[in-house]
Amino acid sequence: MSKEITSRADDYSQWYIDLVRKAGLADYSAVKGCMVIKPYGFSIWENMRDTLDKMFKDTGHTNAYFPLFIPKSFLSKEAAHVEGFAKECAVVTHYRLKNADDGSGVVVDPEAKLEEELIVRPTSETIIWNTYRDWIQSYRDLPLLINQWANVVRWEMRTRLFLRTAEFLWQEGHTAHATREEAIEETRKMLDVYATFAEEWMAMPVIKGVKTPNERFAGAEDTYCIEALMQDGKALQAGTSHFLGQNFAKAFDVKFSTNDNQLDYVWATSWGVSTRLMGALVMAHSDDEGLIIPPKLAPIHVVIVPIPKPLPELDEAATSIATELRARGIRVKIDTDDQNRPGYKFAEYEKIGIPVRLGLGARDLANGTIEVARRDNKTKESVPLAGLADHVEALLADIQRSMFERAKTYRDQHITSVDSWDEFVRVLDEQGGFVAAHWDGTTETEVAIKEATKATIRCIPLDNPQEDGVCVMTGKPSSQRVLFARAY
Amino acid sequence: MSKEITSRADDYSQWYIDLVRKAGLADYSAVKGCMVIKPYGFSIWENMRDTLDKMFKDTGHTNAYFPLFIPKSFLSKEAAHVEGFAKECAVVTHYRLKNADDGSGVVVDPEAKLEEELIVRPTSETIIWNTYRDWIQSYRDLPLLINQWANVVRWEMRTRLFLRTAEFLWQEGHTAHATREEAIEETRKMLDVYATFAEEWMAMPVIKGVKTPNERFAGAEDTYCIEALMQDGKALQAGTSHFLGQNFAKAFDVKFSTNDNQLDYVWATSWGVSTRLMGALVMAHSDDEGLIIPPKLAPIHVVIVPIPKPLPELDEAATSIATELRARGIRVKIDTDDQNRPGYKFAEYEKIGIPVRLGLGARDLANGTIEVARRDNKTKESVPLAGLADHVEALLADIQRSMFERAKTYRDQHITSVDSWDEFVRVLDEQGGFVAAHWDGTTETEVAIKEATKATIRCIPLDNPQEDGVCVMTGKPSSQRVLFARAY
Repeated sequence: MSKEITSRADDYSQWYIDLVRKAGLADYSAVKGCMVIKPYGFSIWENMRDTLDKMFKDTGHTNAYFPLFIPKSFLSKEAAHVEGFAKECAVVTHYRLKNADDGSGVVVDPEAKLEEELIVRPTSETIIWNTYRDWIQSYRDLPLLINQWANVVRWEMRTRLFLRTAEFLWQEGHTAHATREEAIEETRKMLDVYATFAEEWMAMPVIKGVKTPNERFAGAEDTYCIEALMQDGKALQAGTSHFLGQNFAKAFDVKFSTNDNQLDYVWATSWGVSTRLMGALVMAHSDDEGLIIPPKLAPIHVVIVPIPKPLPELDEAATSIATELRARGIRVKIDTDDQNRPGYKFAEYEKIGIPVRLGLGARDLANGTIEVARRDNKTKESVPLAGLADHVEALLADIQRSMFERAKTYRDQHITSVDSWDEFVRVLDEQGGFVAAHWDGTTETEVAIKEATKATIRCIPLDNPQEDGVCVMTGKPSSQRVLFARAY
Repeated sequence: MSKEITSRADDYSQWYIDLVRKAGLADYSAVKGCMVIKPYGFSIWENMRDTLDKMFKDTGHTNAYFPLFIPKSFLSKEAAHVEGFAKECAVVTHYRLKNADDGSGVVVDPEAKLEEELIVRPTSETIIWNTYRDWIQSYRDLPLLINQWANVVRWEMRTRLFLRTAEFLWQEGHTAHATREEAIEETRKMLDVYATFAEEWMAMPVIKGVKTPNERFAGAEDTYCIEALMQDGKALQAGTSHFLGQNFAKAFDVKFSTNDNQLDYVWATSWGVSTRLMGALVMAHSDDEGLIIPPKLAPIHVVIVPIPKPLPELDEAATSIATELRARGIRVKIDTDDQNRPGYKFAEYEKIGIPVRLGLGARDLANGTIEVARRDNKTKESVPLAGLADHVEALLADIQRSMFERAKTYRDQHITSVDSWDEFVRVLDEQGGFVAAHWDGTTETEVAIKEATKATIRCIPLDNPQEDGVCVMTGKPSSQRVLFARAY
């Protein structure tokens, strides 16, 4: 076990922070609540971003870029939106500094006060729909399928690297449609894109569902989400896709002439995922030794470690193996460090989660074999050098698959149906995970349950089976179970 | 000539703005000084960004991400830097809004005042070097070769789309080295990367040089630059690479133990290009009909226009041509609009600068030919369908090459050596371009020349020939000519 990293059993929360910092993913910065994403962490994020970007383009979207700043008055134009987003945000009030009279540095120039304050975007519906008013006149301008990769700021008092930071990176899709049906279809299509990404790239099973009115995005008619389960039994919302109805079109007066020459308000969606996914990736898979990264997102797939250290007689073999693997698109690092011992190196590569380690020793080489170690389940085997590339390629696919299967087994074992309040509380406390329970459908009860247990309704799953029952808290009638959990 | 776009002869400045807006590159936003980068413009920027990103990675750099905000006190830590950057910037003073008592919307909550104001980064040397203090202990941690793609804000009173906006997108490389020599080598290497990108991708010839002390980056020991010439005879600084000496290491106390166990301050570079390159691209090549985009950066290389309109008998041919071209990595759009006439479409595709247009008519098809029109020089020819893909591939390469050659011929014709003040002023007024003139080497004279003529010293070219002469303004002795120009 790595001495640098607290074990999950000792302190799950500290384990997470240790891992994020010590594996080179991110760190705290000098600015309260803001993080630095370190090179290794950023390269994982780049793999996520590039994969998602391609999925967005393959579904007909294009990227654009809108201003960082939002005039304060814009936030007030959509009544629900302002309640959700106008509160904890960074406010720009001045546009100039000047030298302090006492020579002590620089101070804000009181002469340079903005007439209207600017808000650093917490999300961009308002500035984007204000722009769409100029872009949309006719049904011929629709649909408008735009995405933006950007930084956003939501002031947070209690922050945690990746999971909750004042500034974070994300993408926000903002689409405009001629009909309600088409907008809902888009909302669900993008939820499917997110679910596919989570399961096939992140190897993280998710439940697709819809939020209760109380948990909706501020300004949405419906919020769809994907919910994942972390190893400590807490849920994590990994992505949301909102059907915004005509709310923002009405707030910003965005009308279009229909193909039968009527004027109507435009229908909207928005959808986003963020660097929060980095936190989900860490917590879904990693262990006390360090990161476990699914091969599809790993910056380095294979590290070749000459044993006991880089030697001329091993160099040629390492280079030739690397060349063969790289020809198949496998990302390979050859260890060239001659200062540290193999044991130390193995621990370092385990810490940063390189999926496959090849141990290359002179004796093995003479025997025509190599030691292949997989990070996810920590097994090792001796493999013939002949056919190694085939073996490694299949192994990477197997690691990707088995990481998903393991996470799915864990998740499935942690969905518990309960029918009484006592059971509800006991399962939450003793097992964690999702609790499938009847709920009477009121926000009042939802809030009371949260206050009593810290559990929230994560979602009403799509295609949820309908069955008669009674609410676990109030005993009132209910027609379906919903998924509760304590959550990040 | 497009009626939407002012001609260059009538008003060059208005031509530029019309073109940027009408060709779908960018537009003004509701926030003063901030632009919206529209989808088509953003797709060109993505091509620039992805190309540069690969060049940075191929030279050993990795990406990371640092906070948007910089504590006010950080700006004061490097004496020259604060003078250059602390003045016109966006200042965050509060972190919360609240409902106005009179119900009129939201107001800044006076209770939520930050203890120390935060500056929206105008550039990131300070926050990054404050971070590097924790990352660098030993020569083994060096070099540190990091780049960041980010948005930055410099408050500007007079803005122009892409060329000068309050918020813009850029990359900023920040590297740390053990020796002065290695840092200087890095500074010049990245200048070469920029020059290669400008010439080979943007088809825009540049002069590599070094800035005078007066034009240096605030905090640099030397600023290298690439300077391009626009069609109106004004120069444009297209990229800069700074040798920062140990200035930021000293300001932020970043020391390392050398390989002979001494403590020394770290040597630094920084280098950046921005969305300003989009403005340069437009002004270097385009004409009164619209954009001319070099094929290597064009979002669409070839548009196939069925004439007079999409018809079943033309569809198959269009699809088969597109398939063949796409197999070679050529980006193809098939025009499917059946509302507008070919003449209108041709004008639209010229406006957005698609390098090659294929006009596909039934009679041509029967004859086994197709009309091929190139955007850059507006020539047309009838080409056999057999071998079309070879022809188009060669044509795109030829367009790329000839755009560069044309721009280079223009640039070379606009470098004028002058030896008297009268000639200096006359050339600036009547020909524009770069004026190669002797200068006495003082900031005083440089400033006086700028005040008299609005011309600045763009750079002292690398490998500049040494020759005795006298300063055009003061008559004092000089050992080399420097390049003056009026500039963006």
